[in-house]
Amino acid sequence: MKIIKASTPSADGFRMPAEYEPHQGCIMIFPERADSWQYGGYAARKAFAKVAEAIARSEKVTVCASAAQYDNARALLPAHIRVVEMSSNDAWARDYAPTFVKNDTGVIRGIDWGFNAWGGLHDGLYFPWDKDDRMARKLCDLLEKDVYCKRDFILEGGSIHVDGQGTCMVTESCLLSKGRNPGLSRQEIEEVLRAYLNVSAVLWLPRGIYNDETNEHVDNICAFTAPGEVVLAWTEDEGDVQYAMSKACLDYLEQAVDAKGRKIKVHKLPLPKPVTITEEECQGLDACWDEPTRTAGERLAASYVNFYIANDSIVMPGFRDPADQAAKEILQGLFPDRQVVQIYARDILIGGGNIHCITQQIPV
Amino acid sequence: MKIIKASTPSADGFRMPAEYEPHQGCIMIFPERADSWQYGGYAARKAFAKVAEAIARSEKVTVCASAAQYDNARALLPAHIRVVEMSSNDAWARDYAPTFVKNDTGVIRGIDWGFNAWGGLHDGLYFPWDKDDRMARKLCDLLEKDVYCKRDFILEGGSIHVDGQGTCMVTESCLLSKGRNPGLSRQEIEEVLRAYLNVSAVLWLPRGIYNDETNEHVDNICAFTAPGEVVLAWTEDEGDVQYAMSKACLDYLEQAVDAKGRKIKVHKLPLPKPVTITEEECQGLDACWDEPTRTAGERLAASYVNFYIANDSIVMPGFRDPADQAAKEILQGLFPDRQVVQIYARDILIGGGNIHCITQQIPV
Repeated sequence: MKIIKASTPSADGFRMPAEYEPHQGCIMIFPERADSWQYGGYAARKAFAKVAEAIARSEKVTVCASAAQYDNARALLPAHIRVVEMSSNDAWARDYAPTFVKNDTGVIRGIDWGFNAWGGLHDGLYFPWDKDDRMARKLCDLLEKDVYCKRDFILEGGSIHVDGQGTCMVTESCLLSKGRNPGLSRQEIEEVLRAYLNVSAVLWLPRGIYNDETNEHVDNICAFTAPGEVVLAWTEDEGDVQYAMSKACLDYLEQAVDAKGRKIKVHKLPLPKPVTITEEECQGLDACWDEPTRTAGERLAASYVNFYIANDSIVMPGFRDPADQAAKEILQGLFPDRQVVQIYARDILIGGGNIHCITQQIPV
Repeated sequence: MKIIKASTPSADGFRMPAEYEPHQGCIMIFPERADSWQYGGYAARKAFAKVAEAIARSEKVTVCASAAQYDNARALLPAHIRVVEMSSNDAWARDYAPTFVKNDTGVIRGIDWGFNAWGGLHDGLYFPWDKDDRMARKLCDLLEKDVYCKRDFILEGGSIHVDGQGTCMVTESCLLSKGRNPGLSRQEIEEVLRAYLNVSAVLWLPRGIYNDETNEHVDNICAFTAPGEVVLAWTEDEGDVQYAMSKACLDYLEQAVDAKGRKIKVHKLPLPKPVTITEEECQGLDACWDEPTRTAGERLAASYVNFYIANDSIVMPGFRDPADQAAKEILQGLFPDRQVVQIYARDILIGGGNIHCITQQIPV
């Protein structure tokens, strides 16, 4: 693994492919953190395993497990899923596995961004985050990919979406947050995205999903389904605090054009009814210092947009909500060549994210 | 990774290739155990790195490092050597990385033997050994090789040598030791070797190297250099306790025939003068319970036979002894197509083994 510091992907002719382009595999991390996953993580691990199995129908899945959890991972996951030992602070492969870029001859390289647990000492979610922060490079080493070093720039994979044709989509609430790159202007942040993802247009949605503790990652509110097309998490309930947030995104998208000069076609994806954590679930979470990690009744950032596009399927969350079926049908209509698999995801959501957050694709 | 329990390599048409057959790579483990490696392991790690670099000239080398040592390993080893995170109790890849077997169509599988730190609770060298014991399977998972499970049989890779043509060579002192498979007769042990290594002849050398704490592994006293040919660690000093041990092996070999019915051609490889550990070196080793790990003046099991056969080189130890050069020339004569690289190995020897012990080849 060569560490590349003197150049950028775009200077070298590499670009980040869209998630709907073909994958050679997917990376996941086995969950065990006791202040993230209720009651020892057993329910979360079962849900992660279902996600891994759904993806593994059409992609090679590698699951990273700590030394302590290796036996559990190996026992829970079927033989065709690879388990490798790797330590982490938590289980968000989207956010700290490498962002992969690719050139015209099919060479794949990784990008190692800085990671500070979604806000570092300002408003990060845990401390320390050193093991997470090492994963991008360890994974490139494991996969024998050279890696661009951009550790002076804080970015999580869940805070960006690309269309594979020169457009990147982010949220202002996240990328302009004080806990990430406070010394950089919006323009300077765009320059980094252009240089490392090889995009020419950056779409800045104003907000994300209410109470999304990542400072509202884009991957929970809006996702490309094809070049020039997105799904946007939506509620018709004007009394819901989410309404104004989604509406602001819709207004932005209706006036935006992508890198190819196209208007963006927006498909509204309904949100489930607000999902809140129960007292019993909170009782199963370790405390963090003198504060409880979550309090009963707290609203979780549930959204169907947090799906993974596998080679032959869409792996999406379900919440046992009346909107589950409608959301599934919308995605099925938008991805006619892929089978939509819906996995009950409450036990992933409690950890603070969802299916897209716990996966990272490796392009072909 | 499929775990195969119902069959054996020999039943499935797999055999263990000789070390001088072509390799696709080599596995090593980064040393850190404080009661094995003096003064924090810094000197040992430098020696291991030299071995890795010598092998990496003609093979892909993968070095397993703990989470704690990953950064050190990555910093010390050049970019073309792969570092993967994997926990272990110590650094003896030969003994607990998988033994690899291969079939006629080139499929490679691993064998996961039981490991109990060279004698378990009877005369094992440390406790616990759980992380070492998991490595064979983790490595097969990492390398995407199916694995034969033979965990009810205790065996270290350093206790066997094969000629690739149906012959296996072991020592009685090790394979019949009380700390390994005390419930099995010599005949029953041979049956396991036949079934798993796919050999038809087992040569039982009586002894190994004096004070070799592995119960005298064969890989420190005698090694195949070609089918029908071995090097045997030898001293002409009849007053040395090693003399009778080497002589007993020579006597055995002179009457032995291999699987092809050949007599064995024995090349004597001189031993260095006795190497003993110094008081200062002992001061740099952690204690183990209430006993010192080593005591000053203790003789170490130095032997030139403990070399690794890489694709285009022989990587052998040196001890700054007058015999270094003679031993090197003998090996060079026996391996005319490979370059002999001699690495000063005192800092490996202090840990209790040598270059062959810290490596494990993966056949092509």
